[in-house]
Amino acid sequence: MAILFHWSDATQEIWLDAFKNAGCGTDIRSLESPGNRAEIEFAVVWAPPAGQLKAFPGLKYIFSIGAGVTHITLDPEWPAKVPIVRLQDRLLVLDMSCHVIHWVLHFHRHYARYACQQAERQWLRHSYPENADRRISVLGLGQTGLAACRQLRGLGFAVTGWARSRKSIEGVRCLAGEAAFDTVVHDADILVNLLPLTDATTNILDATVFDRMPGGSFLINCGRGGSLCDADLLDALESGHIQGAALDVFREEPLPEASPYWNHPRVHITPHAAAPTNERSAAEFIAAQIRLAMDGGRPAPVVDLSRGY
Amino acid sequence: MAILFHWSDATQEIWLDAFKNAGCGTDIRSLESPGNRAEIEFAVVWAPPAGQLKAFPGLKYIFSIGAGVTHITLDPEWPAKVPIVRLQDRLLVLDMSCHVIHWVLHFHRHYARYACQQAERQWLRHSYPENADRRISVLGLGQTGLAACRQLRGLGFAVTGWARSRKSIEGVRCLAGEAAFDTVVHDADILVNLLPLTDATTNILDATVFDRMPGGSFLINCGRGGSLCDADLLDALESGHIQGAALDVFREEPLPEASPYWNHPRVHITPHAAAPTNERSAAEFIAAQIRLAMDGGRPAPVVDLSRGY
Repeated sequence: MAILFHWSDATQEIWLDAFKNAGCGTDIRSLESPGNRAEIEFAVVWAPPAGQLKAFPGLKYIFSIGAGVTHITLDPEWPAKVPIVRLQDRLLVLDMSCHVIHWVLHFHRHYARYACQQAERQWLRHSYPENADRRISVLGLGQTGLAACRQLRGLGFAVTGWARSRKSIEGVRCLAGEAAFDTVVHDADILVNLLPLTDATTNILDATVFDRMPGGSFLINCGRGGSLCDADLLDALESGHIQGAALDVFREEPLPEASPYWNHPRVHITPHAAAPTNERSAAEFIAAQIRLAMDGGRPAPVVDLSRGY
Repeated sequence: MAILFHWSDATQEIWLDAFKNAGCGTDIRSLESPGNRAEIEFAVVWAPPAGQLKAFPGLKYIFSIGAGVTHITLDPEWPAKVPIVRLQDRLLVLDMSCHVIHWVLHFHRHYARYACQQAERQWLRHSYPENADRRISVLGLGQTGLAACRQLRGLGFAVTGWARSRKSIEGVRCLAGEAAFDTVVHDADILVNLLPLTDATTNILDATVFDRMPGGSFLINCGRGGSLCDADLLDALESGHIQGAALDVFREEPLPEASPYWNHPRVHITPHAAAPTNERSAAEFIAAQIRLAMDGGRPAPVVDLSRGY
């Protein structure tokens, strides 16, 4: 048994230690020198070059070093029969909640306006609704969406969560399915996107959504860039109907230098930094899952390809 | 019995309604036309002109429309025998927590840096410690300090709280008294000031404090401007020892146009907006306290003048 490891930005010691400590052995190989390919049972990868994973006939599981898996499935030849295990990481969930809370408060409490006023030496206070009257809609109720809803609720906001299938979160209005999508968007003073990228969520944030949102509302996109129609958002910002946007993910990353987002005064850009993989806890999670598989158990969460996440 | 009301920015109906609904009557008078001064038993005020309050011989309680009371006690002739009741307001406490959380996250997660990078079209991610390894010290454990500590703890931060007398908050290291002050400051990657302004806290944030803080640390001042030595902070920012500051309160407000804070690239100014009085809930709180006093009860919290808050 051997493990294939591919992540160009990795700190090698962290991963080797984690594999060793979990009892996964020390036979860790790279795409560059894989040795006998038939011996590789587990692949731990971030964005492997297309066409590479299919060359390992003995693969039992692919572990994604990240919550999303398109970095694997965009490879047209990836071995679709091999289950992919997504990264589920307590720190990643907390970091994402913190990112969402920061931008919700940033918009809710006018900090972006105060920054502009500071440049003009202007002392002017702006009123804001009570937290209980500020309606936040969260699209996507996976681990990160659930946690974000709970934290926002803990700060007293009026939170609505939306997902394909119905969930239940105390104090949060949970809606499900396409029929409810209009309502979720209509009631969003601040709309938070945490949806995974699938066929159904590609371009889901378009002009019809922005038109339906209240005038002067805000968008926080920390799901995937492919879910957002950039031209439609720019139009909605231009008209003032959308008052501001905090974007962490983009169709093309790094964001191309020519993007109109860069110098847009009401767009706040972060470089896919909302919930970066914490190497140590990611390595521990994946090593524990491999050990489980070695012992005959079933690693989780396995991606459901019919849903795409 | 009559009530004296003085707050130039008030929305009159909100207060009249609150007094009426709580059963405090409708005899509400102003400084401009007080009628028979001896009939005034309760004064509800924000920043009354100096020398005015002493002219009401029958005053039983002064109610401050704000958590601080220096807007009353700076009047050298204020009637010091009359107890002052501070505003204690659930919404004010929540708003202050949200302000603190916003700026803690803003510094912790490098959002100020990302804003600078955006201007340069630079895509560069910065690492940060796990929340559990980011040490936040909160000075002042009144209602707002306690709530801020709990919320920060809920986000997983390593929180230390400091007050004159010892408090206890689950999951938070609580230190008390002058002897512990050095430790609190020494361990502050982010220092949050929520102290009331008293003789003991005037100029408490000076060069000795900034020197003791870790290199590259941050200051959030949302207590009172008089607690901060502006020149010392500017020096510490200049040297880079203090990496950034979020200032909501100032010695002189509005902040004078000539202040060097306005165009300092690492100072974030908000116009005393961290926890503005919510008129509706403030009016309800004060009206309920007046009703209590009318019924022979004791309004609270009464300011302890020996402590100054």
